[in-house]
Amino acid sequence: MRVYDVIDAKKNRRALTEEEIGFFVRCVADGAATDSQIAAFCMAVLLNGMTDEECYLLTDAMAKSGRCAPRPAASGIFADKHSTGGVSDSTTLILVPVLAALGIKCAKYSGRGLAHTGGTLDKLESFAGVRVDLSPEEFEKQVERVGAAVSGQTASTVPADKRMYAVRDVTATVDSVPLIASSVMSKKLASFADLILLDVKYGDGAFMHSPAQAEKLARLMVSIGERAGRKMLAAVTCMDAPLGDHIGCNAEVNEVLEILRGEKKNDLSRLSVFHAAKILQAAEGIGEEEAASRAANAIDSGAAIRKFGEIIAAQGGNAGDVYKTLPMSDTVHTLRAKEDGYVRISALALGRACAALGGGRAKEGDAIDHGAGILLKVRQGARVKKGAVLAEAYCSKSGEEGFALAESAFAFSPKKIKDRPLVYAFIGGKE
Amino acid sequence: MRVYDVIDAKKNRRALTEEEIGFFVRCVADGAATDSQIAAFCMAVLLNGMTDEECYLLTDAMAKSGRCAPRPAASGIFADKHSTGGVSDSTTLILVPVLAALGIKCAKYSGRGLAHTGGTLDKLESFAGVRVDLSPEEFEKQVERVGAAVSGQTASTVPADKRMYAVRDVTATVDSVPLIASSVMSKKLASFADLILLDVKYGDGAFMHSPAQAEKLARLMVSIGERAGRKMLAAVTCMDAPLGDHIGCNAEVNEVLEILRGEKKNDLSRLSVFHAAKILQAAEGIGEEEAASRAANAIDSGAAIRKFGEIIAAQGGNAGDVYKTLPMSDTVHTLRAKEDGYVRISALALGRACAALGGGRAKEGDAIDHGAGILLKVRQGARVKKGAVLAEAYCSKSGEEGFALAESAFAFSPKKIKDRPLVYAFIGGKE
Repeated sequence: MRVYDVIDAKKNRRALTEEEIGFFVRCVADGAATDSQIAAFCMAVLLNGMTDEECYLLTDAMAKSGRCAPRPAASGIFADKHSTGGVSDSTTLILVPVLAALGIKCAKYSGRGLAHTGGTLDKLESFAGVRVDLSPEEFEKQVERVGAAVSGQTASTVPADKRMYAVRDVTATVDSVPLIASSVMSKKLASFADLILLDVKYGDGAFMHSPAQAEKLARLMVSIGERAGRKMLAAVTCMDAPLGDHIGCNAEVNEVLEILRGEKKNDLSRLSVFHAAKILQAAEGIGEEEAASRAANAIDSGAAIRKFGEIIAAQGGNAGDVYKTLPMSDTVHTLRAKEDGYVRISALALGRACAALGGGRAKEGDAIDHGAGILLKVRQGARVKKGAVLAEAYCSKSGEEGFALAESAFAFSPKKIKDRPLVYAFIGGKE
Repeated sequence: MRVYDVIDAKKNRRALTEEEIGFFVRCVADGAATDSQIAAFCMAVLLNGMTDEECYLLTDAMAKSGRCAPRPAASGIFADKHSTGGVSDSTTLILVPVLAALGIKCAKYSGRGLAHTGGTLDKLESFAGVRVDLSPEEFEKQVERVGAAVSGQTASTVPADKRMYAVRDVTATVDSVPLIASSVMSKKLASFADLILLDVKYGDGAFMHSPAQAEKLARLMVSIGERAGRKMLAAVTCMDAPLGDHIGCNAEVNEVLEILRGEKKNDLSRLSVFHAAKILQAAEGIGEEEAASRAANAIDSGAAIRKFGEIIAAQGGNAGDVYKTLPMSDTVHTLRAKEDGYVRISALALGRACAALGGGRAKEGDAIDHGAGILLKVRQGARVKKGAVLAEAYCSKSGEEGFALAESAFAFSPKKIKDRPLVYAFIGGKE
């Protein structure tokens, strides 16, 4: 068998066998396949598709291309959560301490932001001293002791995905349902979580533009996880406008802290509590109302913010920092409404603006300005007068491009704006 | 503009603009595009296609990615010929001296064989001392002085095609009509021929399996050449069974010499004379019969073999060698019919057998054994008895794999075999 033959088969719309997929993934991991062969394979998959069976086999082979963490012997349920990515989406940093405060162990492997804004790991690094490169042993011990850990997966985890993602990123082959599903789920299968909640975004600011596409991706990932013996939940949620009001590392952390301290309620807090309740319900077999009330109470009682302080401290930071506010960059530009009307806010444009302000990466390894970002002063759908303040944009370098991009994110309509539902569909958790 | 955006547009089935194609090809030539990006682009083109306009723009941009030879000031017509490749297809080595003997200047740029058997340059190197790396100046001078030259194009010619072809070769993206057309025609447009004859093969031993596919490719290449101001002719010819009786470098040269000396007539000699007559007709505006008779007479009179000797001598060899026979390798294996019947011969299988015997390359830069090859003793369609001699296979190393592959090339049918026509269609040259 040759890598060439596997590409040729997919090009000719033939479903690949377990042997072919296993061979291809091994060649990706050990370097026998060239970047050009990986790119041709990914483009053929993007254009010709994969059966669900092929996608499961690809995910399984990718997970097994590196170290698969054995499940610790401890009783209870280990939970994990993954979002396909949006703008001002810091649900992880709220969900994890809420769940840990409720006694659900959270073994959360996260990533860095590759586009627009920083990822969860970048946001955590906004806290002085915090480490996000825990060894598998440190990670497992912390989950046991504190009830939660948030870290990057090590280089030995799913090496095939690392190579494939790097190639996909420059070859316009990211937005393929089977490739997204196998990339996300291979990392989940290599981890030891018993219960996984997926948040699949649809809308202008997401990979999947329609809710139907997003639901298809969600159902595929759920089926892969269930076949691998994991308990799966998935929400299909809207990402037209930013989820929270803050965009950028320090900005988003400050919003998370306000929410965890019970000082702020918005779509971001509501979605985080919704997710927490769904996981609690599935983990403990309790009713929907009881779960929702316990999740909300974890915040109101102060338990969640204390737990977040413990997590920060366990990973090398200061627990007391969760009661402080992180600084924004020195240059600030106020964005004002150019006309009267109901305001529409593009998540994608604000994400790009944040990147241009220095708060995102153009390529892997670029430094991120943690203080750069945007604070929204209005929500989508609000009625504004010309000249009203819409947002503040922060940066510490020349910000013209970022300011202009941020301006372009706002549109004004004479008619009321119909918001799409925040949660379009929820899969799993009913049994 | 980014290479990424060009790939993304083609992935989304959008026709590319002149600006986008020009940008992409420049990035291929100057190294700004990665191999993975070239592969993704080629797979997207293979699966989503290109309009004829896009294909012309791609060809033009590729031709201009390197040195374009200016047309020499001399009067008369410079002719060139290209075959999409087959097994036992040495028409070039017959056609060039026949045309040159008739006063048509042949500026023939050729390639080396990348698969199965050696290419025209490899076959020429079967003659001791012959050089096939003429500089542009040497090439042009020789065409002027001798009336013909056969050489490889220099590294500075169509660099974009060299990179793209190397990527396509390992990513299963060779068999795309627009990519084949742009690769072939970019090299022709970078040369200075006024009149170009294309021989597009169809059948089991060719890239294009059906005559309709081959005709589509031929018409596309003709339209590209005509738009660039060249006079175009194209034949769509059959490549199910080998064209001649010999396969391998020295073997094919020996058959060419027999034909040029007037000692042998077969499909190879007939197709070569047919091509020569078509070019003569188009170049001189004479009738079909007169052209056919003059082409045949160039061989019968001895003018063609003398001209071939002149060409060999001009490129560093001995003119007298064209009256000799080149040696075959020392180990010979006789292939015999395993049953009674009408014999069917697979060109593809014999090509692979020749490569396994040492007469072809697995990858660029591999050495070729010029004495390795196969001499057919029967033609497709012949009725044979069990035990009859079908062919002799020559090699100078362990030949088991090659002998077995050669055996597999023969099948025996109780019913007569319907041969497909040698020339399925001819395009151009009627005006």
